[in-house]
Amino acid sequence: MKLTKLFVLAALSVASLALPAFATDPMPSWNDTAPKKAIVTFVEKVTKEGSQDFVPVAERIATFDNDGCLWSEQPMYFQAFFIFDRIKQLAPQHPEWKDKEPFASVLKGDIKSALTGGEHALIEMGMATHAGTTTEEFEKIVTDWITTAKHPKTGRLFTEMVFQPMIEVLSYLRVKGFKTFIVSGGGIEFMRPWAERVYGIPPEQIIGSSIKTKFEMRDGQPVLVRLPEINFVDDKAGKPVGIQMHIGRRPIAAFGNSDGDLQMLQWTAAGKGARFCLYVHHTDAKREFAYDRKSSIGRLDKGLDEAQAKGWTVVDMKNDWKIIYPFEKR
Amino acid sequence: MKLTKLFVLAALSVASLALPAFATDPMPSWNDTAPKKAIVTFVEKVTKEGSQDFVPVAERIATFDNDGCLWSEQPMYFQAFFIFDRIKQLAPQHPEWKDKEPFASVLKGDIKSALTGGEHALIEMGMATHAGTTTEEFEKIVTDWITTAKHPKTGRLFTEMVFQPMIEVLSYLRVKGFKTFIVSGGGIEFMRPWAERVYGIPPEQIIGSSIKTKFEMRDGQPVLVRLPEINFVDDKAGKPVGIQMHIGRRPIAAFGNSDGDLQMLQWTAAGKGARFCLYVHHTDAKREFAYDRKSSIGRLDKGLDEAQAKGWTVVDMKNDWKIIYPFEKR
Repeated sequence: MKLTKLFVLAALSVASLALPAFATDPMPSWNDTAPKKAIVTFVEKVTKEGSQDFVPVAERIATFDNDGCLWSEQPMYFQAFFIFDRIKQLAPQHPEWKDKEPFASVLKGDIKSALTGGEHALIEMGMATHAGTTTEEFEKIVTDWITTAKHPKTGRLFTEMVFQPMIEVLSYLRVKGFKTFIVSGGGIEFMRPWAERVYGIPPEQIIGSSIKTKFEMRDGQPVLVRLPEINFVDDKAGKPVGIQMHIGRRPIAAFGNSDGDLQMLQWTAAGKGARFCLYVHHTDAKREFAYDRKSSIGRLDKGLDEAQAKGWTVVDMKNDWKIIYPFEKR
Repeated sequence: MKLTKLFVLAALSVASLALPAFATDPMPSWNDTAPKKAIVTFVEKVTKEGSQDFVPVAERIATFDNDGCLWSEQPMYFQAFFIFDRIKQLAPQHPEWKDKEPFASVLKGDIKSALTGGEHALIEMGMATHAGTTTEEFEKIVTDWITTAKHPKTGRLFTEMVFQPMIEVLSYLRVKGFKTFIVSGGGIEFMRPWAERVYGIPPEQIIGSSIKTKFEMRDGQPVLVRLPEINFVDDKAGKPVGIQMHIGRRPIAAFGNSDGDLQMLQWTAAGKGARFCLYVHHTDAKREFAYDRKSSIGRLDKGLDEAQAKGWTVVDMKNDWKIIYPFEKR
């Protein structure tokens, strides 16, 4: 929460752009281009009493993808770095991994070979590194990792590589009575330990992929044990399913960056009344990364076509964002 | 929400019992016996700044069972009445049901025979009546039913058979900064259409049993189709699993009435810091129903022993509640 408060204070300290009903600019890291105007126009019309587009507070649900939408996702999903670090950490307990792919390649530092097994290899590594602990133990493991591990390119903590303009959107929406949710293909229990501090989003508003857990008594104490079995994959057509399961109400605004978010945006757009869909387009090779239709990570291809066809808002990171990361603020 | 507001107004209109930090009695339908005092004592200590038991607002999570805890559950779970009504409604589309158990017995009005198949028969009927529609269609079906169907004994709408004292606990906790959740073995999508109006609990704070859904496009419009396949059973050891999946944070207070809630109460009680666990004991054959250790519906046996052993609060409905249902208020 501290970080969020800091951003709000930062937002309040800049000169007013005379946006209606907001004393100062709620989104100072955005250039005054079309996407910012589209966000403000939408929020103003659904929150203005008497407006024909007015939406009661209880129905102001906004959903955000995480990887590539709220923080970076290159050269690979940040959770994959966690998986590889955890394989190294667990290796002493698994002598067999030295001769077993994909683990052997990871232990040799050869990530490229480790990933040649595709999704199957990644799931195998995910299970081996995410299961076998209690939920409380796993929370501590994630917390320890996220507060120390660094991104290989920037040398920054991964939580420093969040998108300042999107943090401002989250704050702005909440000030306007929205409930903000994460709806990510990433692991639900990988995000929860830090999302409240970094994004201001509490655990009960995080939706993600999960493995099964089992309640049991250990020495008279109840624990939830994490099992090596997929519970739910919160990606593509799974996103509207996850939204219905956890929220039970259709969002009126959805934010994504890849084809994995397309069904979430379609589901959001198809509701009655005013709707807002936004794609973050990674166009800034210098300050962040540039990729879209051909990328294996965060591919944006069909989604880009549909956004253009349906008039959804597309953020051109290079031109629409003054800064990308919070640390760029002097 | 209207009903809740009404209760709050009613609460405010009675004479003050001089409870600390509340101008008037927040729970006027409770007798001034031990359970009421235990609730108030707990809430006061966890919400008082500077108290060694103080809990920040974000962590004030309270979970409530529904059947038998927030509304009645006799002579059978109210959702079972929905299932039987829906079988009759769907019968014209299923001529084969006339000769197929358990459907044939239901259509003959012989519920007892229909239930001889036990859990298997109930699941079969649940699937047949809860799947096959879109989520939006199902919401409308439930809404139509809940606003018209009547309880066979009282002749009241089922939503009139909620427990006024528990509604007051929900309101009191929310005024004190708690987030209130339902954690029920009942169907999540059976509760969501009316729980906000009746209990003030929004859809995203309802946890329950569910069937799987599937995202698909119909005539260019995205829909979520309800499938005849169990997704999650939110009962017994499933309750802590459901709590972790949806909330991701351990409750500090939990309210139940049966052995099906025992693991939820154990999970809640085992957390660090001040905790509150309460069982509603159905002791009032005259105003409601009296049942516990031997009942097939809402059995309270192991839970009653554990509550006594651990000093959890047990509500004796007959002696602790001034009224049971809202309609008893003049």
